[in-house]
Amino acid sequence: MSDELTFIAALRHIATHPAARGLADDCAVLEVGGETLILTHDMMAEGVHFLAGQDPADIAWKLVATNISDLAAKGAEPLGVLLGFTLGQAGADARFLVGLEAALAHYRAPLLGGDTIATRLAPTHGLTAIGRATHRPVPSRGGAKVGDGVWLTGPLGAAMVGLEALKAGADAALTEAYRRPRALLDEGQALAPLVTAMMDVSDGLLLDATRMAVTSGVCLALDSAAVPIAVPEARRAEALRWGDDYQLLFTLPPDTPPPVAAHRIGTVMPAGAAPLLLDGVAPSSDDGLGYRHERGSQDSPTPARQTPD
Amino acid sequence: MSDELTFIAALRHIATHPAARGLADDCAVLEVGGETLILTHDMMAEGVHFLAGQDPADIAWKLVATNISDLAAKGAEPLGVLLGFTLGQAGADARFLVGLEAALAHYRAPLLGGDTIATRLAPTHGLTAIGRATHRPVPSRGGAKVGDGVWLTGPLGAAMVGLEALKAGADAALTEAYRRPRALLDEGQALAPLVTAMMDVSDGLLLDATRMAVTSGVCLALDSAAVPIAVPEARRAEALRWGDDYQLLFTLPPDTPPPVAAHRIGTVMPAGAAPLLLDGVAPSSDDGLGYRHERGSQDSPTPARQTPD
Repeated sequence: MSDELTFIAALRHIATHPAARGLADDCAVLEVGGETLILTHDMMAEGVHFLAGQDPADIAWKLVATNISDLAAKGAEPLGVLLGFTLGQAGADARFLVGLEAALAHYRAPLLGGDTIATRLAPTHGLTAIGRATHRPVPSRGGAKVGDGVWLTGPLGAAMVGLEALKAGADAALTEAYRRPRALLDEGQALAPLVTAMMDVSDGLLLDATRMAVTSGVCLALDSAAVPIAVPEARRAEALRWGDDYQLLFTLPPDTPPPVAAHRIGTVMPAGAAPLLLDGVAPSSDDGLGYRHERGSQDSPTPARQTPD
Repeated sequence: MSDELTFIAALRHIATHPAARGLADDCAVLEVGGETLILTHDMMAEGVHFLAGQDPADIAWKLVATNISDLAAKGAEPLGVLLGFTLGQAGADARFLVGLEAALAHYRAPLLGGDTIATRLAPTHGLTAIGRATHRPVPSRGGAKVGDGVWLTGPLGAAMVGLEALKAGADAALTEAYRRPRALLDEGQALAPLVTAMMDVSDGLLLDATRMAVTSGVCLALDSAAVPIAVPEARRAEALRWGDDYQLLFTLPPDTPPPVAAHRIGTVMPAGAAPLLLDGVAPSSDDGLGYRHERGSQDSPTPARQTPD
């Protein structure tokens, strides 16, 4: 077990409050007054989550979008964000603000507060997003039922080729999917009353689907050919393992059509030998299922992932 | 103007939601579902906010205590925290968890969620604390009225000598004030219905009192001899400029006695040439008033401060 998984397992022993959902969900879900708050905090570090030379405006956008995507997976609407920012060069910081303001305006998420620190270290930024549930009970990863359909809102792999294009110095339009991911707030709110389980795909479909299956105590049987991809067919296996697209993965009762554009990619089966079946076969863990953030390092500009077969 | 102050000034242009309080308060104050949420996020970086070799259990304690202290300054009670954690060595991370669990238990603040990242960089951690107001309106820095008394809950300078002792390798008891600051939650809740303004002293009394005066549009006239200190008299000037003690600074109407142990240290005067008078004289800005976090650097183990006179 990696240090990160060991650490998170230890955190779970501390996080016994029901609002923490066992640290097995995208967000904390906290009842306050007559509302249900949705709380999430994600960090991004240079060399792990963004390239050292990237436009800080894009870094800010992505920091906002990844957190808002977690709210989307709960069907929440944003109430605001708190920013934890490591100061850098004045010009770069001004660019960060341009992206921050654009992203917050796009998602109608007011900036409420936060903290800035000055170090000479490579920057690490954090964002806390606070939302309110638009539907209760709030969807979790843990509600998938045997017989449900497994659905995905849109294609995978766009961020993968976007990053490749960015490294190659391509035009902005070709890199946008990586630089400026979109959180599907409207889709999440439309889906929340209907889904049995929902999460965003941030770390790769196969890894995130496995998490949903384990949390739900079921097996997700996926049809790889049914998964929409934004890349050539030859790269389908990679696209299924790549993260950063922020599509919503959800399960619906068999007689319930999705209220938003979505693709049925599989069926929920009883728990068996493996939590995930891809075309009837359990993917070997040696093949890797997706992002492994704990493998991120200063040397790899994005989280290293295990080699797909 | 430093880069940090320029950045924060630019952030204020974005943070126009009333809950942000113009980024001029310890916390955001957000009305949700019949409750008033109190939200704060503080970061700590190695080499800036803690020593490279410090016990991670103490770092965790301080990260919790500094955020909870912001809640205390609003008279809030904690609802929970989100942790943003940079993984290090497994043994050190285990020590961090020991301190985290102790601090969260002490302040009855459940761990609700967060994020961990793996980098090879020096660690930067963040914590978001969420609380609920126990009294409304929620105290701000901006309510001090001419004629009010200026009060402080307890002595300054203990953290200063604690850090010196820590650097000198002294026994744990001599360093505790620096390593394990106490957030004054009970005092803050008792004071909230009575005060006209309140904040915690995190960056030095003179600097924080100046902030209160500016936000309130008044002058705070302090009697330096009345300020309780935890150090020899010869170091009074330093103690008034040192942070990290987390005492509460507040103003009360002249006929209102404080409901908790506190020391009257001054009087609120009409706004004049200077926001702060110390024994009738405006402290020279060349002398420095306290912490300047934007001067923190990898080389200085705590935020560098300007030399006191």
